Amino acid sequence: MTDLDAFPHPVYRDTVLAPLFEGVRAHYAAGMDAINRAHLVMLVETGILSRAEGAALAGALDAISAEVDPAALTYTGEHEDWFFLVEAQLRERLGDLGGALHTARSRNDMDHTLFKMALRPRVARVEAQVHDLAGTMLAKARAERDTLIVAYTHGQPAQPSTFGHYLAAATEVLLRDAARLSDAADGLEHSPMGAAAITTSGFPIDRARVAELLGFEGVLLNSYGCIASVDYVTGLYSAMKLPFVHLGRLVQDFAYWSAFEVGQLHLPRALVQISSIMPQKRNPVPIEHMRHLAAVTAGRCDMMVDTMRNTPFTDMNDSEGEVQQAGYAAFESGGRMLDLLAAVIAAARIDGARVRRNADAACVTITELADTLVRDEGLTFRAAHHVAAETARAVIAEGVPLGVGHAAFARAFEAQTGRATRLDAGAFAEATSPETFVARRDRPGGPAPAALDAAFDSYDETLARLRDRTRSRAARHAAADRARAAAFAALQET
Amino acid sequence: MTDLDAFPHPVYRDTVLAPLFEGVRAHYAAGMDAINRAHLVMLVETGILSRAEGAALAGALDAISAEVDPAALTYTGEHEDWFFLVEAQLRERLGDLGGALHTARSRNDMDHTLFKMALRPRVARVEAQVHDLAGTMLAKARAERDTLIVAYTHGQPAQPSTFGHYLAAATEVLLRDAARLSDAADGLEHSPMGAAAITTSGFPIDRARVAELLGFEGVLLNSYGCIASVDYVTGLYSAMKLPFVHLGRLVQDFAYWSAFEVGQLHLPRALVQISSIMPQKRNPVPIEHMRHLAAVTAGRCDMMVDTMRNTPFTDMNDSEGEVQQAGYAAFESGGRMLDLLAAVIAAARIDGARVRRNADAACVTITELADTLVRDEGLTFRAAHHVAAETARAVIAEGVPLGVGHAAFARAFEAQTGRATRLDAGAFAEATSPETFVARRDRPGGPAPAALDAAFDSYDETLARLRDRTRSRAARHAAADRARAAAFAALQET
Amino acid sequence: MTDLDAFPHPVYRDTVLAPLFEGVRAHYAAGMDAINRAHLVMLVETGILSRAEGAALAGALDAISAEVDPAALTYTGEHEDWFFLVEAQLRERLGDLGGALHTARSRNDMDHTLFKMALRPRVARVEAQVHDLAGTMLAKARAERDTLIVAYTHGQPAQPSTFGHYLAAATEVLLRDAARLSDAADGLEHSPMGAAAITTSGFPIDRARVAELLGFEGVLLNSYGCIASVDYVTGLYSAMKLPFVHLGRLVQDFAYWSAFEVGQLHLPRALVQISSIMPQKRNPVPIEHMRHLAAVTAGRCDMMVDTMRNTPFTDMNDSEGEVQQAGYAAFESGGRMLDLLAAVIAAARIDGARVRRNADAACVTITELADTLVRDEGLTFRAAHHVAAETARAVIAEGVPLGVGHAAFARAFEAQTGRATRLDAGAFAEATSPETFVARRDRPGGPAPAALDAAFDSYDETLARLRDRTRSRAARHAAADRARAAAFAALQET
Amino acid sequence: MTDLDAFPHPVYRDTVLAPLFEGVRAHYAAGMDAINRAHLVMLVETGILSRAEGAALAGALDAISAEVDPAALTYTGEHEDWFFLVEAQLRERLGDLGGALHTARSRNDMDHTLFKMALRPRVARVEAQVHDLAGTMLAKARAERDTLIVAYTHGQPAQPSTFGHYLAAATEVLLRDAARLSDAADGLEHSPMGAAAITTSGFPIDRARVAELLGFEGVLLNSYGCIASVDYVTGLYSAMKLPFVHLGRLVQDFAYWSAFEVGQLHLPRALVQISSIMPQKRNPVPIEHMRHLAAVTAGRCDMMVDTMRNTPFTDMNDSEGEVQQAGYAAFESGGRMLDLLAAVIAAARIDGARVRRNADAACVTITELADTLVRDEGLTFRAAHHVAAETARAVIAEGVPLGVGHAAFARAFEAQTGRATRLDAGAFAEATSPETFVARRDRPGGPAPAALDAAFDSYDETLARLRDRTRSRAARHAAADRARAAAFAALQET
Repeated sequence: MTDLDAFPHPVYRDTVLAPLFEGVRAHYAAGMDAINRAHLVMLVETGILSRAEGAALAGALDAISAEVDPAALTYTGEHEDWFFLVEAQLRERLGDLGGALHTARSRNDMDHTLFKMALRPRVARVEAQVHDLAGTMLAKARAERDTLIVAYTHGQPAQPSTFGHYLAAATEVLLRDAARLSDAADGLEHSPMGAAAITTSGFPIDRARVAELLGFEGVLLNSYGCIASVDYVTGLYSAMKLPFVHLGRLVQDFAYWSAFEVGQLHLPRALVQISSIMPQKRNPVPIEHMRHLAAVTAGRCDMMVDTMRNTPFTDMNDSEGEVQQAGYAAFESGGRMLDLLAAVIAAARIDGARVRRNADAACVTITELADTLVRDEGLTFRAAHHVAAETARAVIAEGVPLGVGHAAFARAFEAQTGRATRLDAGAFAEATSPETFVARRDRPGGPAPAALDAAFDSYDETLARLRDRTRSRAARHAAADRARAAAFAALQET
Repeated sequence: MTDLDAFPHPVYRDTVLAPLFEGVRAHYAAGMDAINRAHLVMLVETGILSRAEGAALAGALDAISAEVDPAALTYTGEHEDWFFLVEAQLRERLGDLGGALHTARSRNDMDHTLFKMALRPRVARVEAQVHDLAGTMLAKARAERDTLIVAYTHGQPAQPSTFGHYLAAATEVLLRDAARLSDAADGLEHSPMGAAAITTSGFPIDRARVAELLGFEGVLLNSYGCIASVDYVTGLYSAMKLPFVHLGRLVQDFAYWSAFEVGQLHLPRALVQISSIMPQKRNPVPIEHMRHLAAVTAGRCDMMVDTMRNTPFTDMNDSEGEVQQAGYAAFESGGRMLDLLAAVIAAARIDGARVRRNADAACVTITELADTLVRDEGLTFRAAHHVAAETARAVIAEGVPLGVGHAAFARAFEAQTGRATRLDAGAFAEATSPETFVARRDRPGGPAPAALDAAFDSYDETLARLRDRTRSRAARHAAADRARAAAFAALQET
Repeated sequence: MTDLDAFPHPVYRDTVLAPLFEGVRAHYAAGMDAINRAHLVMLVETGILSRAEGAALAGALDAISAEVDPAALTYTGEHEDWFFLVEAQLRERLGDLGGALHTARSRNDMDHTLFKMALRPRVARVEAQVHDLAGTMLAKARAERDTLIVAYTHGQPAQPSTFGHYLAAATEVLLRDAARLSDAADGLEHSPMGAAAITTSGFPIDRARVAELLGFEGVLLNSYGCIASVDYVTGLYSAMKLPFVHLGRLVQDFAYWSAFEVGQLHLPRALVQISSIMPQKRNPVPIEHMRHLAAVTAGRCDMMVDTMRNTPFTDMNDSEGEVQQAGYAAFESGGRMLDLLAAVIAAARIDGARVRRNADAACVTITELADTLVRDEGLTFRAAHHVAAETARAVIAEGVPLGVGHAAFARAFEAQTGRATRLDAGAFAEATSPETFVARRDRPGGPAPAALDAAFDSYDETLARLRDRTRSRAARHAAADRARAAAFAALQET
Repeated sequence: MTDLDAFPHPVYRDTVLAPLFEGVRAHYAAGMDAINRAHLVMLVETGILSRAEGAALAGALDAISAEVDPAALTYTGEHEDWFFLVEAQLRERLGDLGGALHTARSRNDMDHTLFKMALRPRVARVEAQVHDLAGTMLAKARAERDTLIVAYTHGQPAQPSTFGHYLAAATEVLLRDAARLSDAADGLEHSPMGAAAITTSGFPIDRARVAELLGFEGVLLNSYGCIASVDYVTGLYSAMKLPFVHLGRLVQDFAYWSAFEVGQLHLPRALVQISSIMPQKRNPVPIEHMRHLAAVTAGRCDMMVDTMRNTPFTDMNDSEGEVQQAGYAAFESGGRMLDLLAAVIAAARIDGARVRRNADAACVTITELADTLVRDEGLTFRAAHHVAAETARAVIAEGVPLGVGHAAFARAFEAQTGRATRLDAGAFAEATSPETFVARRDRPGGPAPAALDAAFDSYDETLARLRDRTRSRAARHAAADRARAAAFAALQET
């Protein structure tokens, strides 16, 4: 029979406390140590604790670091969680003074500080993965600037373009996704420390100093907000969902392009599962795996945001330890998806012969012929359209590529205008070639080489700026680690 | 530089193949062994393989089981996954015959069979947890059949009821959730085996026999559907989300009831975190933890269903290994939530003094006074309503419980009717007592004891039926294990 | 300046009350009338009201029906909502007695009764649309029982099957979806009436009689549950999401099959948008429209379920008027999707020439050749596999269909076995033809005609049972309408 | 029998085309006119069309505007949609030249331009509603800067704070939400025009000029991205979901604060539904309505994002007309929620007596007493903690407020320290008063007046900047309207 008068209830211990202890041990022990040190430095610098008290506490913290290995502990129920274990250690070593480290702070402000710090390396890594993917896409786009593809609308072949142009489109979206992610990462960079339980403290604390020693950009102002706001979580996972929704669309294109009957995209042997009995069968299975990895990641992001629905606006476990840790899985699956997509894009190539065959079959340059007739032969739009449509009909009936359909074209032209066309077979072939089609589209954003080169340069700049933002955050964190170590060491000097 | 001509690409290996191998090893090795054995029995029984071939293959499977420990393996890339490792082992031992086990089957039908089998114990366990919770709620409801509570509508105290009545309401929902879950569990009980790659096989296989040897209720008929349908997944997680959404609502009530100012629900010390400095502060933290556990579980269920959106209807990885395993986390968090809620309900008690105080302050029996005046004093509804309202106004102004407000009532009655009331102070006190209020509500579904007792009996029956369904599934699975072992052993007898 | 002492606040009026009034007027006026009549009948039959009172109230209700046209009203703020308007009308006509109709009931039980009744025709209609779609699919499957298609796995051509077999797979899923929907529809068929505010009533009401007069299967037992449970909503929308997720997968197949380069599925001119200049371009746009209609419908279903997250378990607006009405949009978009898909399936046809071309190019019958060599030539699996693979390699290199590759086959056979094959060119062509492939797959669930015919018959039965369930619900509702009218008329007879 | 050779199929017409036509008519007619005019100006300015052609087309567009009233039209099937109707009108009036307006553009680029333009007023309005709410919250926070409340953590009373401090916390979150929304609004401000079907045009178009004439900030660069990217949609609805998730949390607090037993928040009569029979019952129903309006809005935002899952990255209907219009409902419900919340906050007041009662009962200032003993009496933390705890225990046992517990305090102090305390009864009462508690918390972000005043000023600045961003977008749109009208008028001057 369970003793209901003794905390904790065994079921509570097994379903909540033990998992929490494990989570803190695994994810937050280092951050808690950093907070302890930064907070102690501040308490001494502001005179809330004496230098002697500071030195004693600093020594004890160093000793605990040296002697207690979080990795070696298991939950026994003696200490409700990792935090209380450290506090007990302090009291054991220093007696009453052990409790002084907790002056002017609380689990409430410490927890959200920890959660933000624990998200930093995860966010930095996923940002780097997004940036590397964008870099890979951009390099590939440059390398394939002139590689023709069939471009689709509504799932049907519509016009010729280039692989470089297509990848540039995808890169633009990804860079915007990266910018949204970077904004969300900035949302982690304000320190809750000093909010204490809810309302800051009656002691003359220096919140900015603690923020600085922990590498934050500054303090999160309102102290109730420090412990009750969850928009650093919802904003992050909300922003993080988007690239996976968007890249999932790219994946659908790749799946289609690499389908047996389409064959526009070719993956090398390293990324294709084959059948020993069906030699022509090449399953580009990584593409499928990217789809579900992206979908699961998006779902995990949703889970985080939706967990906050209709919770009260006050410090609550709904945004704390366990839920935080549930979210980390999104970084794991998402990171794999990003790495795999970069590898797939780097390795993929366009099958030019299949592109040509599909382009011919679909007569994808026919609109350019009509435009040419308007520009060079002075036809009205309607007349030009009519000649082009007749020409298309004829070559399709004959089953030949448009480029060799000059005779049909000449007939249609004469029938419409009553005169002979000035376009000879060579000019006609050129006017209807995919290469010409692309070359003429040199407006900003178009696939012609000069337009693309200009675009690539602008993406380089954007990507560099995004990488700088990530780097400068990391640099601030590293500088704070050094400053904190120095200030902490100074506490023990006499 | 990556060798693009050699499978697998190192990034594909690290992001997909190695995790998959780990997953198969951890979750599907036993199921694969069961399938191998059931399929072999069928191949021999139908004469597709000779008895001698069957005996040789059976011996090799036994040897592999004895010699290869899935737990000891790590992914080396030599075998694409666990399946191929076993196949390689068979070929190594039996040469050409080793491949014969794969006659008339495919990874496609095997995979979905495995996934269904791997879900069985998880579903059985979560069903048991739901049933046990329902049992706990029902036992508590019986024990607290007569325990008064204030019942709320729109967040405001409205009427007296009993804890038993409230828990019965929650039990009804949970039993319906359990029924939906049981239906979804039945959705796992049809065997895909024999669908082979898509279209069954040209060999004279016996699908029903394999289904029987693996404990299924029967075959899943259409063979394309066997490998392309995912509604066993979506149906399951969709049904599983619901109890967690619904129980999350109960948790919100418990949070409110146990709030400091309300105090209707009391958790014992074993489930309350206290403050050494604020002795009156009792944080019923398990309640909060249940809220986020339920929310995260619901989010994980959503993730599974939404991963299927806009995937093609054909055999796809979107419903396979990795995604399946991502779903298991829902059972983990959900199971903890159910266990914790059962513990909380068993341990909780109603604080009768607080109930009385809140009930008095809110005058929650006043409508019954009006009804009494209609029934016993022959007043019109309007007149009765008027007298009751006046009485309420008076006792609230005086700050006394309604039950002692006979004087005010008598005045209001006389003012309205011009005559004295026949209700003396005792009758008045009784008419306005919560106990009377409850006792009079003896219609089906009401809180009066007889009505509740009848309801409890009906819930018992429903719960017993649900438990039977779960048990009979488990019994079929266990019987199949025995039958399979016997049939397999028979293969090796001469 | 807003008068804060006068209800309602103008912003509350504009943002909540006026929209609510409009909604009640549009959606619930008829149901409220039915409830008024059924409840009155019960009050008189149980003697709670006298026959004279009943006759007066019945007459007034008839007069209000004749004189007040809900469609002609607009919200003035005089009456908080439609319910109070009717009540005011009753009081105006009958004085004090007007309030007697509200004896032993409450807005709480009335509201959920109304919501369930308002869902009935919507659910009945979407069920009929699902059944009709299943009927259309089944009819088409029968008509196309023998029409060959290329069947895909992992997005690649894998085996021949038939359109009938494919549609049968989809039908099976849809029938299971329909069963889930039917179960959810049953979840609407229990009456909350008599729960009153929370706890039933002290009057001797007959809940079963009201339930019967309103066409319910019976009462929803626990009275707190009657007003607090929302699983009739969550269960319904949860079940309704699934067919749209599943059909969205079918739509993805159709999109692929009808892609320019694939061409397996052909939509007639009536369903294709064409380009005047690109005559070969045929955009099967309805397919795209079905995808987003399905997705939006699924999203609307999610919205309904997720609105209940972390709301208290007590009567709340979160499951009432406005939210209920927001959900109706799911029936609107979902219904259009179902109708359109039925039209598309009825009108679509398979392009046999493209199927043949794709099947030949992908060598999709090669596994059957290997199986044939095992069965008919006594080869081991490995040897048969080797001969088949060599044959495939040769015909693909030559660019000819497998069926004419007898010479290559004979060479490979002899090289492997050292003897001549017994299969002559005719037997070889037959063994490797898609027709043979399909014909040999006659196991339960396979595509061979007999297997399919048996399956079709079982689907017919299932569909008939589902239609019966819907019909019998509708019949009960209609019978109740008649019974209620008769009982109500009897109130006014002397 | 349906004629399958005639477009459109009646079911396609009814389920897709007619609704689309209605939608375009209602939502996009004005934008299409603006695009027509801007595009025509550019065609003439770049010399693609002659001035004479331009004048003729301009005249016809004016005539159509004057003569065709979109509001008066219904779908007849003659024109597939509104776009084709205008084009037909142009051809009817100008013959062949009518088609020239469509030079160098396409439905693809026009559509996404239209969708962005149609979102502008909706986004501007919801931004204004968010800003107005923030303004209301800020004004209220200033007015209630010194109004004490009980602040909660984990649902339990924890410390005193002020309503101003609480509202400031909520304002901070809302301002960050507004910033995210503003960033998303910027995502609408790049013009797709000139992308034409996919790849821009061979004509020498000036994309920047069209962008300018339509009020965009500039062009969206990559032309494939112009028609395939949907992140302006997903980014918008993703950002828009967040305030409704976050405000839903505030609503939960208000629901709790205004609960009968808590009573910290008081809504005036204008926002409370009362009961004629239970005079003490005051249902603050607007609070509930805000919860479901927020939840439904969040769900509608999810629907929009999730509709894009696994769609191809190419121009698709999944992000077009119908789906766009489904999203508008989020603005409708969301706008009502924001307006209602602003009205509620403006009208709400704190019930000081209830705050005092709850604060006393919960002893919420006890931690400050301990801190005071450390600071002013030189006690160790442990000793101070012990004295405070003993004091709390005593006053709670006596049922008196902490402030009058000096005697108990003095006893506990002496027992712990062996000496008399220096705090007399007055100093003790002050040390333990909520006012002192708040006044001492003057660190940045704290509730003390100076800290709050500084915070309010910073919020003012942030809000002003956000309003400027919205205003400058609107100003650019309006300026473009004027510039477009002028340039268009110039086309008709000779």
